[in-house]
Amino acid sequence: MTDFDDLAARLRRLEDDRDIRQLIASYGPAVDAGDPDAAARLWASDGVYDVDGWRMEGRADIHAMVSSAAHQNLVAKGCCHFLGPCVVTVTGDEAVALCESLVLVRDGEGYRVWRATAHHFALRRIDEQWQIGTRTSRLLDGNPDAHALLTRGLAGSA
Amino acid sequence: MTDFDDLAARLRRLEDDRDIRQLIASYGPAVDAGDPDAAARLWASDGVYDVDGWRMEGRADIHAMVSSAAHQNLVAKGCCHFLGPCVVTVTGDEAVALCESLVLVRDGEGYRVWRATAHHFALRRIDEQWQIGTRTSRLLDGNPDAHALLTRGLAGSA
Amino acid sequence: MTDFDDLAARLRRLEDDRDIRQLIASYGPAVDAGDPDAAARLWASDGVYDVDGWRMEGRADIHAMVSSAAHQNLVAKGCCHFLGPCVVTVTGDEAVALCESLVLVRDGEGYRVWRATAHHFALRRIDEQWQIGTRTSRLLDGNPDAHALLTRGLAGSA
Repeated sequence: MTDFDDLAARLRRLEDDRDIRQLIASYGPAVDAGDPDAAARLWASDGVYDVDGWRMEGRADIHAMVSSAAHQNLVAKGCCHFLGPCVVTVTGDEAVALCESLVLVRDGEGYRVWRATAHHFALRRIDEQWQIGTRTSRLLDGNPDAHALLTRGLAGSA
Repeated sequence: MTDFDDLAARLRRLEDDRDIRQLIASYGPAVDAGDPDAAARLWASDGVYDVDGWRMEGRADIHAMVSSAAHQNLVAKGCCHFLGPCVVTVTGDEAVALCESLVLVRDGEGYRVWRATAHHFALRRIDEQWQIGTRTSRLLDGNPDAHALLTRGLAGSA
Repeated sequence: MTDFDDLAARLRRLEDDRDIRQLIASYGPAVDAGDPDAAARLWASDGVYDVDGWRMEGRADIHAMVSSAAHQNLVAKGCCHFLGPCVVTVTGDEAVALCESLVLVRDGEGYRVWRATAHHFALRRIDEQWQIGTRTSRLLDGNPDAHALLTRGLAGSA
């Protein structure tokens, strides 16, 4: 590989990293705006969102979750899905990202923290666009499955 | 455009992205240190901070807000302005960034969450330095203006 | 310097920035998984973690902290060490990073915020790997030392 090709490959890797962080940073604003389209398009068409045993499959399931009365009531009351910085591991057209999040709900004059969760994302590059293949989320309530997710994410394992 | 020029342009774009994230990540530490100069210089000289109907115009207004007894009392009591990862859209010498934040205040042996807010930043490159042109912030308390800000930010619209 | 060398140096700088952010983003998941090895290896072999007057020196001390009954009980109960986006200043083989964090603990059906802290990292590149030389952490409870840390971090001073 020439020096130039090496530089181009490393630049591409940095762009992948940026694009994946951008994708994941979009999730909170999408669901806090109550926007089902903006949330659903972050997933691949056959993407999965497995959250504490509730398994959504395909964009229609994500769309339905954000459109649901339960979610829209949360948005109307005031909520904040706050995802932190990710650990990202890119391998060609696949990637793994790991982060933690807080979900806050309006309560009187302030907010209470309802959930603190570990998130593992298995991503794929599809048509030059990073998309979520499978997102697995487990509450940080002592559940060993949440700890296993964190360990897998740190190792960059899908 | 030669391959080399293309690479140089993409590198510049990545640097813009990094510089904008760095600028916004500086806000919390600046105001939590109670440092009015560090906060004010993040804005353009004619920059605006519009927060839930309170409109500050120019660096002197930002400086006055951070210097105020209300803010300095918060710092003395213990506060944390915690901004999350941004969604950044760069278009030449202009950019839009979107994030959410929590403001926490010391309360007994812990902290309570006082505010959870959506932030939309319209930024400009001035003298080779990214600066905040207008920052618009709305509480996530069910206010549809906050949801509109999130949607605009996701779309990269100023 | 040729144009090519300039591009290569700027790319390297961006990679440093990414690698340092990745290192720091790994801390929360490592300690929330209760994984002492994953936490300890973020530090240089002679690295220091000075947290509100408790001074840990060397990886063995970090390892012991994460392995301790106190920490493992926190993990079993459910905790979240949530570090925010960093301000990073790279100078050759040294760097400074600054961020704030929240520590949350499971409480009934939700979580309470136990700590909100300022963190200053002095990092070194050792064997082509960024490692923490000294991490200094002070609670945001009005302590002027916390404010001084924030100011030093914003200035990129070690």
